[in-house]
Amino acid sequence: MINKPTAQLPVRKVTSAQTSETTDILAVEEPLEIRVTMGATGHRVEKVISVTMRTPGNDEELALGFLFTEGIISGKKDVIQVHHSENDNVVTIDFDTWVVASLDSLERNFYTTSSCGVCGKTSLEAIRTKSVFTGADSLTVTSSMLHTLPELLRKNQEVFATTGGLHASALFDTSGKLLIVREDVGRHNALDKVIGHCAQQNRLPQMESILLLSGRVSFELMQKAYMAGIRMVAAIGAPSTLAVSLAAEYGITLIGFLRNQQFTVYAGAQRIQEK
Amino acid sequence: MINKPTAQLPVRKVTSAQTSETTDILAVEEPLEIRVTMGATGHRVEKVISVTMRTPGNDEELALGFLFTEGIISGKKDVIQVHHSENDNVVTIDFDTWVVASLDSLERNFYTTSSCGVCGKTSLEAIRTKSVFTGADSLTVTSSMLHTLPELLRKNQEVFATTGGLHASALFDTSGKLLIVREDVGRHNALDKVIGHCAQQNRLPQMESILLLSGRVSFELMQKAYMAGIRMVAAIGAPSTLAVSLAAEYGITLIGFLRNQQFTVYAGAQRIQEK
Repeated sequence: MINKPTAQLPVRKVTSAQTSETTDILAVEEPLEIRVTMGATGHRVEKVISVTMRTPGNDEELALGFLFTEGIISGKKDVIQVHHSENDNVVTIDFDTWVVASLDSLERNFYTTSSCGVCGKTSLEAIRTKSVFTGADSLTVTSSMLHTLPELLRKNQEVFATTGGLHASALFDTSGKLLIVREDVGRHNALDKVIGHCAQQNRLPQMESILLLSGRVSFELMQKAYMAGIRMVAAIGAPSTLAVSLAAEYGITLIGFLRNQQFTVYAGAQRIQEK
Repeated sequence: MINKPTAQLPVRKVTSAQTSETTDILAVEEPLEIRVTMGATGHRVEKVISVTMRTPGNDEELALGFLFTEGIISGKKDVIQVHHSENDNVVTIDFDTWVVASLDSLERNFYTTSSCGVCGKTSLEAIRTKSVFTGADSLTVTSSMLHTLPELLRKNQEVFATTGGLHASALFDTSGKLLIVREDVGRHNALDKVIGHCAQQNRLPQMESILLLSGRVSFELMQKAYMAGIRMVAAIGAPSTLAVSLAAEYGITLIGFLRNQQFTVYAGAQRIQEK
């Protein structure tokens, strides 16, 4: 199977007027493991230097560009060969024998995994976290309540209103009341602030609240929501394929494109009453 | 000085009809260093476990939420005290004596800095990279050419068109011709793909091209552009304060909100001819 940048999934589309079971095309999100080999002939070592969540396609460019923009290589001349097969999630780059890569700079990379390294799947397992909140919930919401949330979020995004430059995360109760909203240039930070607030207040898990995200939903955000025991995630933007599979696996309701009196349900539709 | 979430900066606003020197309010982006102390009384150790680029505000929540969602602590009960003064970029969290934090999970964090650690400024230095391309350029573009770019980008964003879920990075020449476009769920990946492509083709630096970004501009994206010798960055969305300061420091022209026949220049306006 060749990795593709998009995938088609079954979804439920809900508008104020009607509900339909259909399909939706999503951006694929999968881990890419970047490995390098280096050292003198006969003394080569292989290192996994980064696992990045990416959309498949142009993986060799991504690996080269990453090594270059992180200052690890100074150009193509440092590289003897690039190994990559289109059906897996690993790119291996052989450095020329004289290239001495700085381990300090390697250490500042995203999702650095020091121990794992067989394949992308293994790496993905290594960066997954385990929630302590896995009990049952009784969360249900109405579609009419969901339609009210984007406007409430926008009204409470103070910094976005003045700068146009921030992501927001917010929690609402099932009646549509805003519980907390936080903003940040980093979408993961906005969510960490919300969950940190709940931790400060000893209000975790948040099984009966709805998490609303101002943008798109990735693996990382779903994982953070899961850690906080959140059972319903709604986003103004699109989810990635990996966000949808995590939602299904963790039993989390995942709603995307919540705007203009419409939304799309990617997982856990049983918690939504259409009225 | 108390860290604020927004800052006002001088900018030039350009529409097809007029140009004005004015000010703009930007979302602040600054590093937050998260430190922990742990161990038995008399044997406490302090570790810098993460530096995250964030918007100031609710920093203690962010630090707690980060430690919780990364699975490092299981709740507020693991924490004795949180140290934070509003005028710096460090939060220190004292773990209770019996908390044993997994170093494996610490190692997977963003921007992990193992050696630095005096303050946010020091951390920021530690995560900065150094470009080999610092020579002079002769890049100039016209404002009318810039106005044409967003439409060209949109037309060439194949995956976005079907999913609504991807970031794009593209290079254009000074006549407005598209040279390369790449898409990804991660904005840094889309840019790494573009730069990796240039590295493959031995076409670095890219001093005479314009980099167009589909979303917002952060520290990280400006740093990657700088590494590739790019001298002009234009974005459909807003820049952060740190993106603007890097642009000024590196001599890069930075344009934001390029859409609807308008744009805002945050740095390096001398490269733009208004016609």
